[in-house]
Amino acid sequence: MAPVGGPGAKKGILERLDSGEVVVGDGSFLITLEKRGYVKAGLWTPEAIVDHPDAVRQLHMEFLRAGSNVMQTFTFSASEDNMGSKYFEHAEEAVWAVEVLKESGKPVAVTMCIGPDGDMCGVKPGECAVKLVKAGAAIVGVNCRFGPSTSLKTMKLMKEGLQAAGLQAHLIVQSLGFHTPDCGKGGVVDLPEYPFGLEPRVATRWDIQKYAREAYNLGVRYIGGCCGFEPYHIRAIAEELAPERGFLPPASEKHGSWGSGLNMHTKPWIRARARREYWENLLPASGRPFCPSLSQPDA
Amino acid sequence: MAPVGGPGAKKGILERLDSGEVVVGDGSFLITLEKRGYVKAGLWTPEAIVDHPDAVRQLHMEFLRAGSNVMQTFTFSASEDNMGSKYFEHAEEAVWAVEVLKESGKPVAVTMCIGPDGDMCGVKPGECAVKLVKAGAAIVGVNCRFGPSTSLKTMKLMKEGLQAAGLQAHLIVQSLGFHTPDCGKGGVVDLPEYPFGLEPRVATRWDIQKYAREAYNLGVRYIGGCCGFEPYHIRAIAEELAPERGFLPPASEKHGSWGSGLNMHTKPWIRARARREYWENLLPASGRPFCPSLSQPDA
Amino acid sequence: MAPVGGPGAKKGILERLDSGEVVVGDGSFLITLEKRGYVKAGLWTPEAIVDHPDAVRQLHMEFLRAGSNVMQTFTFSASEDNMGSKYFEHAEEAVWAVEVLKESGKPVAVTMCIGPDGDMCGVKPGECAVKLVKAGAAIVGVNCRFGPSTSLKTMKLMKEGLQAAGLQAHLIVQSLGFHTPDCGKGGVVDLPEYPFGLEPRVATRWDIQKYAREAYNLGVRYIGGCCGFEPYHIRAIAEELAPERGFLPPASEKHGSWGSGLNMHTKPWIRARARREYWENLLPASGRPFCPSLSQPDA
Amino acid sequence: MAPVGGPGAKKGILERLDSGEVVVGDGSFLITLEKRGYVKAGLWTPEAIVDHPDAVRQLHMEFLRAGSNVMQTFTFSASEDNMGSKYFEHAEEAVWAVEVLKESGKPVAVTMCIGPDGDMCGVKPGECAVKLVKAGAAIVGVNCRFGPSTSLKTMKLMKEGLQAAGLQAHLIVQSLGFHTPDCGKGGVVDLPEYPFGLEPRVATRWDIQKYAREAYNLGVRYIGGCCGFEPYHIRAIAEELAPERGFLPPASEKHGSWGSGLNMHTKPWIRARARREYWENLLPASGRPFCPSLSQPDA
Repeated sequence: MAPVGGPGAKKGILERLDSGEVVVGDGSFLITLEKRGYVKAGLWTPEAIVDHPDAVRQLHMEFLRAGSNVMQTFTFSASEDNMGSKYFEHAEEAVWAVEVLKESGKPVAVTMCIGPDGDMCGVKPGECAVKLVKAGAAIVGVNCRFGPSTSLKTMKLMKEGLQAAGLQAHLIVQSLGFHTPDCGKGGVVDLPEYPFGLEPRVATRWDIQKYAREAYNLGVRYIGGCCGFEPYHIRAIAEELAPERGFLPPASEKHGSWGSGLNMHTKPWIRARARREYWENLLPASGRPFCPSLSQPDA
Repeated sequence: MAPVGGPGAKKGILERLDSGEVVVGDGSFLITLEKRGYVKAGLWTPEAIVDHPDAVRQLHMEFLRAGSNVMQTFTFSASEDNMGSKYFEHAEEAVWAVEVLKESGKPVAVTMCIGPDGDMCGVKPGECAVKLVKAGAAIVGVNCRFGPSTSLKTMKLMKEGLQAAGLQAHLIVQSLGFHTPDCGKGGVVDLPEYPFGLEPRVATRWDIQKYAREAYNLGVRYIGGCCGFEPYHIRAIAEELAPERGFLPPASEKHGSWGSGLNMHTKPWIRARARREYWENLLPASGRPFCPSLSQPDA
Repeated sequence: MAPVGGPGAKKGILERLDSGEVVVGDGSFLITLEKRGYVKAGLWTPEAIVDHPDAVRQLHMEFLRAGSNVMQTFTFSASEDNMGSKYFEHAEEAVWAVEVLKESGKPVAVTMCIGPDGDMCGVKPGECAVKLVKAGAAIVGVNCRFGPSTSLKTMKLMKEGLQAAGLQAHLIVQSLGFHTPDCGKGGVVDLPEYPFGLEPRVATRWDIQKYAREAYNLGVRYIGGCCGFEPYHIRAIAEELAPERGFLPPASEKHGSWGSGLNMHTKPWIRARARREYWENLLPASGRPFCPSLSQPDA
Repeated sequence: MAPVGGPGAKKGILERLDSGEVVVGDGSFLITLEKRGYVKAGLWTPEAIVDHPDAVRQLHMEFLRAGSNVMQTFTFSASEDNMGSKYFEHAEEAVWAVEVLKESGKPVAVTMCIGPDGDMCGVKPGECAVKLVKAGAAIVGVNCRFGPSTSLKTMKLMKEGLQAAGLQAHLIVQSLGFHTPDCGKGGVVDLPEYPFGLEPRVATRWDIQKYAREAYNLGVRYIGGCCGFEPYHIRAIAEELAPERGFLPPASEKHGSWGSGLNMHTKPWIRARARREYWENLLPASGRPFCPSLSQPDA
């Protein structure tokens, strides 16, 4: 494996994806900064940038150290990284936006906030992807609202839609850091735990390694996270795909892969956890026997 | 309620507790910095202080903003805050330490890493507390290894032991931020999820408000956290006890109590979550139907 | 409500369904007799009829008392009740059978062992129903292999298929008495709990009342059970549909509807359970905190 | 192993226990007959004996076939099997009864409806056992109200109490067929699922084999069941202890031990379940992801 660090910092997103590079996105800003005391839940306005720039800079730094090689989420702007990007709930609205952005001459990336059941008007993921690519998007995928395995189901449907239509595009996925197999169409916000009781749903680093591998196998090459993705989740993507990318992220200095850092523990039964099979097969308990496994969405 | 901010920054711990003040401790440094990419799990050495002082300072700042009015955990030293403090697994060892620390002339606080079943030699919590206070400790309690409700069970036994022996001492509790009802004597480290699969056990802010209230009702006046306690958990202690303390922490600027920040949400069913009864009664789902609720400890 | 008992004992099934009557099927013979010690799991041969005729007669009696007004399951024969009936895994095979049975001049009922995903060759439920009715079946539906809510999903698809094709037929559903939301195409037999660990999945009587009501609302008029359906489950169908049928089954002499029999209990908190809202909303715990909620099917 | 059948039919209970024999009790009459449609829940009066003698006789027969070699439960009388037996909630009341029964000259067996926390007045299990044996009871133990593992905890405490007091007595355990780890002092009746939502708590046959083995290892020699124990649960006791007793029960003709009857199944993954390790280690799912694992008792 190559030394820690990585190439391509100056290339544009599309150039990097075209050359076959795997791009690791960043993670959760608003929800993470809420837990750190800098953002207020509800309207989720990013005023922290003005009020607490150090806290924002610190989190940016953590995602970079974790292996992210784009920085886009928090500002919701099209200026960074030479990419126009937006998030949409409705296919039709997304198509209009692509048509506008295309005129800027920049490559257009569009992520939709949809799950396997499609948009609020019943447009299915495959059809959404086709519409967007026909309108001119170069990168299409999903962002936010749904957990890792649900987001990948949607990506699979998008990919199949594009294949059936004979179209080509780069794929992007930015899942929640929460498991949401019980979501309805509206995604995580309709679950009764949103936004202050999502803790038991937080993905482990191993869940995210699995997510990164499955996304890669599906052909997705821009893999990141959204709400609930902490720096160590981003690092998990970067570590899982280190063989393909050829390098580990800086923060892996502080992380033995697959728990190997436990191999010096004084208790033998904890040392025994320093191996891949252990963490890959662990079914972690919630410690909450009075709680259910799934919820009914409110809408 | 008094304005954000608080008194007593210059007084010593014992002076503050003697005057009836509620002291809010800080939270998790090692585990939190591990997730941010600055500490390596396993030996858990605090070299981050040297390597990444900004990251450590940032986290200190977050705990202060969240309402903590002591700062002790990360350095493991007796120098800060004019208090000698140590953590022990065995009552006998703790007693020796108290006898040594007492000679320094500082007030001695001792927290033990024990659960309701007592120490590794079978000394019960009540008996531990009695031994420590007889040896000269002014503040006794528990730290780490066990989750909120389990730690409070231990505190109740300590208090009863002291009462039965006609002794007096200040009580301190610093629970894990993880639920561990299934722990054995050795605590969280023996659970199969330790340390990389504990996510589903993370306490919500509401769990911690309940913990703070129950600790207060039990007579504990130094209430903090340990591994797994993020800044928003510390804020939850400070918010729950704001009526008693007379002020809210700075980070409450970014937090509507009991979810009140949701009352402007566009979706009516999410607005309906902006109330205390909702969050107090929520039984949060894990989103993990293939996982159990409890685990068998490895030892 | 009419007196306990019921009309129509001498009419044929089709005649009864044509006249708008609700027919209550019977329940589980093999699995129930296995638990009573008379049948061996595995090959499930019905030799108990010969070896222990009293035990079989006793169970028949229990289903009759519970409200069943057909008796077909145990013997797997086409002779009883003037109806030719068979269970099939493959649509094609079922169609052949209908064509043969039709020649007998009897009304043909066909239940398929399929779930919402259709038969083993990928023929969807709607298409299966259409094929069978076109081949001459007068009554179509599902039997065994899937739990109550899964079976009703399949029935909904069958009904929609028939409607889309402009066809008419009577509908029959005979669900398992076990919840199987985690089934794959092969149904309950592929779940790791089959057949000796299914206990935590057994439906309550309230689950079955809900099933009966939903089946009725869907237009199903022949409602019964299969493996796991005990006499009290059949009674639950008969009690739920007593308003429509106009009478209660004999075994309701021994059952207060919706727990009303508890209203004389000496403990007030148990008396408080003597009402419909209580049982309708109960989420019953498994008492098994080390077990998951769902399983991965073996195939 | 000796042929199916068994010795000792004519000996009295005490004679059999004194000679080292293992006595297998019977199971649940009221709850089982309720599910068959012959008994009304609530007051649980055994009028079925008069109204439906065939149904009662049939169930008696099933328990006998399953291996029970006493028949006492349903009639609540002291006449059968030459033993005076009663069930008590309070130690004091139980002691009075023993003193009266002793005068009859028959051996006195007393089972108490208590859990590990002792009787309603706070008398602990060990102390209860001592009081009863001092009063003249020859057989002491627990009956009903608590599930298998909870009942065995109580038995362990009874045994330790007797040992500490230097007393000797035969031990009897008759657990519920439901798992109740979440019970309070009042036992199963205080759980919100009682009596019409207990299905997910029903023990598997493998749970009962474990219970029988642990009871035997603890020194209990009269092992039976109470509410929720079906014939196949009694058979599980008899099969587990067949090596010690020297014979299998008649109903084992219809049961391959440890699932061996599956070894001819056509699907290879079901054949793979025909072995002891499989069923011993299975953690059966509830199929109910919206339900909790444990409940809070109502009292």
